Amino acid sequence: MLDLTSNAVDLTRAICDIPSVSGDEGHLADLIEEAVRALPHLEVIRDGDTVIARTNLGRARRVAIAGHIDTVPINGNVPTRTVDIDGEEFIWGRGTVDMKAGVAVQLTLAADLVAPKADITWIWYDHEEVAAALNALTRIAATRADLLAADFAILGEPSNGQVEGGCNGHMRAIIRTHGVRSHSARSWIGENAIHKAAPILERLAAYTAREVPVDGLVYREGLNAVRITGGVAGNVIPDLCEVEVNYRFAPSRSGAEAEEHVREVFEGFEVEVIDMAEGARPGLDDPLAQEFVAAVGGTAQPKYGWTDVARFSALGIPAVNYGPGDPQLAHHDEERVAVAQIRDVERGLRAWLT
Amino acid sequence: MLDLTSNAVDLTRAICDIPSVSGDEGHLADLIEEAVRALPHLEVIRDGDTVIARTNLGRARRVAIAGHIDTVPINGNVPTRTVDIDGEEFIWGRGTVDMKAGVAVQLTLAADLVAPKADITWIWYDHEEVAAALNALTRIAATRADLLAADFAILGEPSNGQVEGGCNGHMRAIIRTHGVRSHSARSWIGENAIHKAAPILERLAAYTAREVPVDGLVYREGLNAVRITGGVAGNVIPDLCEVEVNYRFAPSRSGAEAEEHVREVFEGFEVEVIDMAEGARPGLDDPLAQEFVAAVGGTAQPKYGWTDVARFSALGIPAVNYGPGDPQLAHHDEERVAVAQIRDVERGLRAWLT
Repeated sequence: MLDLTSNAVDLTRAICDIPSVSGDEGHLADLIEEAVRALPHLEVIRDGDTVIARTNLGRARRVAIAGHIDTVPINGNVPTRTVDIDGEEFIWGRGTVDMKAGVAVQLTLAADLVAPKADITWIWYDHEEVAAALNALTRIAATRADLLAADFAILGEPSNGQVEGGCNGHMRAIIRTHGVRSHSARSWIGENAIHKAAPILERLAAYTAREVPVDGLVYREGLNAVRITGGVAGNVIPDLCEVEVNYRFAPSRSGAEAEEHVREVFEGFEVEVIDMAEGARPGLDDPLAQEFVAAVGGTAQPKYGWTDVARFSALGIPAVNYGPGDPQLAHHDEERVAVAQIRDVERGLRAWLT
Repeated sequence: MLDLTSNAVDLTRAICDIPSVSGDEGHLADLIEEAVRALPHLEVIRDGDTVIARTNLGRARRVAIAGHIDTVPINGNVPTRTVDIDGEEFIWGRGTVDMKAGVAVQLTLAADLVAPKADITWIWYDHEEVAAALNALTRIAATRADLLAADFAILGEPSNGQVEGGCNGHMRAIIRTHGVRSHSARSWIGENAIHKAAPILERLAAYTAREVPVDGLVYREGLNAVRITGGVAGNVIPDLCEVEVNYRFAPSRSGAEAEEHVREVFEGFEVEVIDMAEGARPGLDDPLAQEFVAAVGGTAQPKYGWTDVARFSALGIPAVNYGPGDPQLAHHDEERVAVAQIRDVERGLRAWLT
């Protein structure tokens, strides 16, 4: 049984040592459910291997605080151990960063904060590290969106103990040119599709990405070729060239607007959108969010990579990332979290919620 | 046994019906050797599966007339048959165009012309349809170049019964750009190698190919991308982009000059030459060649594709292509040669040589 009254550091080790690679979260979910059902101030809902626990204090505001309980596969890096690096204490092992230290902080506070100043919906969910279709938040948003309802959401993803707001959207598209094949000895009979792609690369090279303030954070965009292919054989004029572009766009821009922008940039060319995920506004203009940033300290930063905060954003709920651990070490064989960051994040959340 | 006294049309069918896909020319070479050894006016040399037969009349000039006896693999299109298309008679089947009709004309004339006005070296060789390293002319040029010695050479490759002079050279090179990988969510940390390739495609698109008069024929050049590749993954800024270009250059330009030109065009970029074959001058300023063109009639055309005439050119021997058959039908499943072209080419060669 999990002891939620110990402390977030010991609890981090305890839940890291319970295997819960995506698809095998059942046992950990059972233990979490059992522990929070023992707390009379929380209403508990089990949905698949997701455990939701919430206060119902009639507060003016409700905050959702979420963390996924699955990890990517272990690689000889569990059970956890504590290590000392240059005088700093770390917990070493799979899941310590992504993101069981964050979950341990949440479980500790869920047990401890019987009268927070906002109502809280704690969400510990499964299948985050795999395809979006398997992600429990995808399922719950579709089947029981009421469980996610809140005025503000915090995702405990590793952010080095800093507030990272929202996230950029991203899309991928194929920009295509067509030509006519011919033998390269008589190239004037054909039309070279690769040569026709010159303006596509010119426009990409000349493109100046925007820096867009959204709710007080500046999101840096990017439009990049990530793949180019063309060619039939060494003696054939190619009849097709494809440039795959990746567009990262500020959360103030909708998917439709992003597509319109890419079509404008590549006007005159065939454009096929093959992937689209809208971003998430940080919502830092919300008073609750401003109190949150003030309480936890530091300066909020924009999150560039896409995370599950976008799911809350899609439900109209401003959301930020805030958790212990260096995101660069997530999924890394040397994954490890600084004990001090666990304590800092616990202190920050506690200060804001009480 | 081959009957060289029949006629070139019947002989075309006879030798097409003897399988001789590259590597299996031995039996056909045996039959050709046997037939020409029966002719007292010819000295016969067998070298591998190549048969060389020559007159030694002490003429002021010697002409080499060559044809390969192998074919690409058959595809249900032998034995040959005669067909009538819109009132015109064709021999249908593998090898009829490329190039046994030409060989049949040569064998007929080899038997018939006991006192040509120039000495003739007839060359029927193996392994033309495969890698250059296997080509019998490669071997003989290296081991017994004296056997190829001549003042002028005619290759009986299909040219629709027109004289096609020399051939363009060709080279292939990789033009390369380098960048720095990064996650596409933070593209400003990396350097996009695909974007850096924009000037390569611009220069190709803007390139105006030369038209170069050589010995009275105008060779049209071409510089083309034939392949482009770049990209690591949909969310990674690529660190490498490669553009493979194919340069077809007039026979008045050496391989070294061609390389220098390509390096100039792509100045500032990494250029790696991966394939190089110099062209062949048509040598139509040679009196013997002028007599030849006058005798066979029509207007000489430049040959754009690379052929074995370049091997003679490399030995300092002007050379042209002249043979029956539409080169567009070579290797085609509907390969077929017009009977009238076989007769025209036989008549043309005979007129010039007597």
